[in-house]
Amino acid sequence: MSKGKVLLVLFKGGQHAIEQKKLLGCAENELGIRKFVEENGYELVTTTDKDGPDSLVEKEIEEAEIVITTPFFPAYITRERIEKAKNLKLCITAGVGSDHIDLNAANEKKLTVAEVTGSNVVSVAEHALMTILNLVRNYPSAHEIALKGEWDIAAAARDEYDIEGKVVGTVGAGRIGYRILERLVAFNPKKLYYFDYQELPQSAVDKINQASKLFNGVDNLLERVESLEDMVSKCDVVTINCPLHEKTKGLFDKKLISHMKDGAWLVNTARGAICNAEDVNEAVKSGKLLGYGGDVWYPQPPGPNHPWLDLTRPNGFSGNAMTQHISGCSLDSELRYSLGTKSILESYFTKKFDYRPQDLIVIDGDYATKAYGERNKK
Amino acid sequence: MSKGKVLLVLFKGGQHAIEQKKLLGCAENELGIRKFVEENGYELVTTTDKDGPDSLVEKEIEEAEIVITTPFFPAYITRERIEKAKNLKLCITAGVGSDHIDLNAANEKKLTVAEVTGSNVVSVAEHALMTILNLVRNYPSAHEIALKGEWDIAAAARDEYDIEGKVVGTVGAGRIGYRILERLVAFNPKKLYYFDYQELPQSAVDKINQASKLFNGVDNLLERVESLEDMVSKCDVVTINCPLHEKTKGLFDKKLISHMKDGAWLVNTARGAICNAEDVNEAVKSGKLLGYGGDVWYPQPPGPNHPWLDLTRPNGFSGNAMTQHISGCSLDSELRYSLGTKSILESYFTKKFDYRPQDLIVIDGDYATKAYGERNKK
Ligand SMILES: NC(=O)c1ccc[n+]([C@@H]2O[C@H](COP(=O)([O-])OP(=O)(O)OC[C@H]3O[C@@H](n4cnc5c(N)ncnc54)[C@H](O)[C@@H]3O)[C@@H](O)[C@H]2O)c1
Ligand SMILES: NC(=O)c1ccc[n+]([C@@H]2O[C@H](COP(=O)([O-])OP(=O)(O)OC[C@H]3O[C@@H](n4cnc5c(N)ncnc54)[C@H](O)[C@@H]3O)[C@@H](O)[C@H]2O)c1
Repeated sequence: MSKGKVLLVLFKGGQHAIEQKKLLGCAENELGIRKFVEENGYELVTTTDKDGPDSLVEKEIEEAEIVITTPFFPAYITRERIEKAKNLKLCITAGVGSDHIDLNAANEKKLTVAEVTGSNVVSVAEHALMTILNLVRNYPSAHEIALKGEWDIAAAARDEYDIEGKVVGTVGAGRIGYRILERLVAFNPKKLYYFDYQELPQSAVDKINQASKLFNGVDNLLERVESLEDMVSKCDVVTINCPLHEKTKGLFDKKLISHMKDGAWLVNTARGAICNAEDVNEAVKSGKLLGYGGDVWYPQPPGPNHPWLDLTRPNGFSGNAMTQHISGCSLDSELRYSLGTKSILESYFTKKFDYRPQDLIVIDGDYATKAYGERNKK
Repeated sequence: MSKGKVLLVLFKGGQHAIEQKKLLGCAENELGIRKFVEENGYELVTTTDKDGPDSLVEKEIEEAEIVITTPFFPAYITRERIEKAKNLKLCITAGVGSDHIDLNAANEKKLTVAEVTGSNVVSVAEHALMTILNLVRNYPSAHEIALKGEWDIAAAARDEYDIEGKVVGTVGAGRIGYRILERLVAFNPKKLYYFDYQELPQSAVDKINQASKLFNGVDNLLERVESLEDMVSKCDVVTINCPLHEKTKGLFDKKLISHMKDGAWLVNTARGAICNAEDVNEAVKSGKLLGYGGDVWYPQPPGPNHPWLDLTRPNGFSGNAMTQHISGCSLDSELRYSLGTKSILESYFTKKFDYRPQDLIVIDGDYATKAYGERNKK
């Protein structure tokens, strides 16, 4: 008899799992943890069948002691599921961002929710930079026109700009937001702004400004802005890098977007539900925004009628720089979050519970991180 | 009677010329120079009709004293055209890169060829960074899959990597190549290499290494490599940033590509003819290269059967990150090269001939730049 059950929910690899052995994050390759889990006396159940009342997750969660999920192919761990999970102690997010788990319900049941903090923040920062470049340089239209074999330079160039000299702001300047700022400096933007209730350490601000001095001769590139409306009104590009929680759900709606500059670009690699999908669609279709891009949707998968499948500008060209939720699961990231998941499991299996503090989201009935909204900490 | 004729060849703007007044580079908007040219007593003839024996360029070049062309929509100024251009004194490239002009023939006729050096180098460096990110992060496949409304994470993630930890090398470390290196530092690559017969000034190398020390704690990031085969064999990403001349035509062929790492990425925002189009196509189709991207083709327009319209990997997904030749004609660049063209004209009209030395490609029968191949200078 096993000590307990570990339920692991991952995306399907299919043929790709066979052809690409580095694809650790798929159900077939199981983060490379099967042997480790079994050697520790636990049973591992891996599935892709996560949605609806007849799914394997719905059934297996009743017995599971540990549930491992990812943001990319989220098994939503709802209040209902948590309530019927009679053995559940630990939820691990293989990746970063645990909003697919009802954290308040997890607190009521005194579950531990841990994620592999930092495991894919570089990947997401790169994806955000890529998306900013794609939008500002008008890659969505330009690539489409090029592959049609047309040579309509004007059609692509008419909405093509440089990042140099533009103003870029981030909502959230945590691990990802800050890394985006670092990567932007050498592009010589006019100004970098951030909005976050946690202030960046002075050393982090100094580093950006030192780099800017070196590259651009400007030593006051980065500034904090106190009001979000104020920040977005100054920016050519806004990039969203805060977690999804009560205060950020639907944050970018018609009202907030109306404060943005006409013809601005919006990038969201954080969580789809931080934006109102319809309002973003309307903003691109009306020409208010020149484009929208990122890799996160709500729900995931988005289904065939999601407003972000079509983001066409008034002039008929594409302002769409979306991918599926893959920024955080590059092969480099998959290795890092697989190892990180194993290390969280090890802390649990050995009963040392010596988790890395930065990995803990909720524990012992309360939030362990300041990132999921401003709260009065006990 | 006018003093002489200025022939201006630009891409067609059409509806976009009306809707986007910043689109200075199209035939309708004429770089904003008509008034200036006419005030100086010259006649301005602007056309898009540039190819073949019955084209307006073929006819007008016989009388023209000055020809202004662009690399984006090149009017090829061949030996034959130069020979019959009996009044021709000055060829201006509105942009950077004058390989569409037969420079040896221009020397024989003692023409001046000048370009607006630096006018769009930032734009091209940004475009190269965008293309590197798109290829390494597998955007071509990922975007396609996402917009089909599928949620096949594995299909995109299987070929998705981070730039962090990769080795990137540039062929040519002039204005554009160096700017690409600057923009790569904060991405924390494993190593940056360059191959160029002109050595970077020590201060330029120091700047990269100082920035790397600041961002990555590594102070020997950038190194020069003496042999091209050697450099490409070390690189995950190779980016091409040298001019097209006798020694670089067809440089990236089957043989040189065979020295590249398996699964490497190749980026070319310099000139299409530096790569052998068929060989690059075969390298992507066979899986030798994971992808190819950039914005330059040969010829331009490429016609409906160009090998780069389809760069599909063995697994059926796209490894194609091409656009038309637009990296250097962002609206920000169009303003800069329009002003630069005007300033070259002014030097000529006033008979001061006080050109910026860096703008001169050939003059008085010889090359004025070191960039178009190693030569014995007189
Ligand atoms: N697309 C992906 O694959 C992917 C991968 C990793 C993380 N993410 C998302 O990105 C988020 C950020 O990740 P991180 O590692 O930078 O987290 P982090 O905890 O290091 O930083 C988050 C920052 O957001 C700030 N914040 C919270 N609420 C805010 C608000 N209302 N307004 C402004 N700032 C606010 C926090 O104070 C914190 O500084 C994650 O929570 C996750 O949702 C996405
Ligand atoms: N895609 C576009 O829109 C666009 C725009 C501008 C320039 N370009 C192209 O990029 C090229 C470079 O522009 P730049 O402003 O950096 O020029 P630059 O003159 O500043 O630098 C070119 C560098 O290439 C080096 N070089 C020449 N031949 C070489 C060889 N065989 N191997 C290695 N290095 C070699 C030169 O020594 C020089 O350092 C232009 O000539 C043009 O063809 C393209």
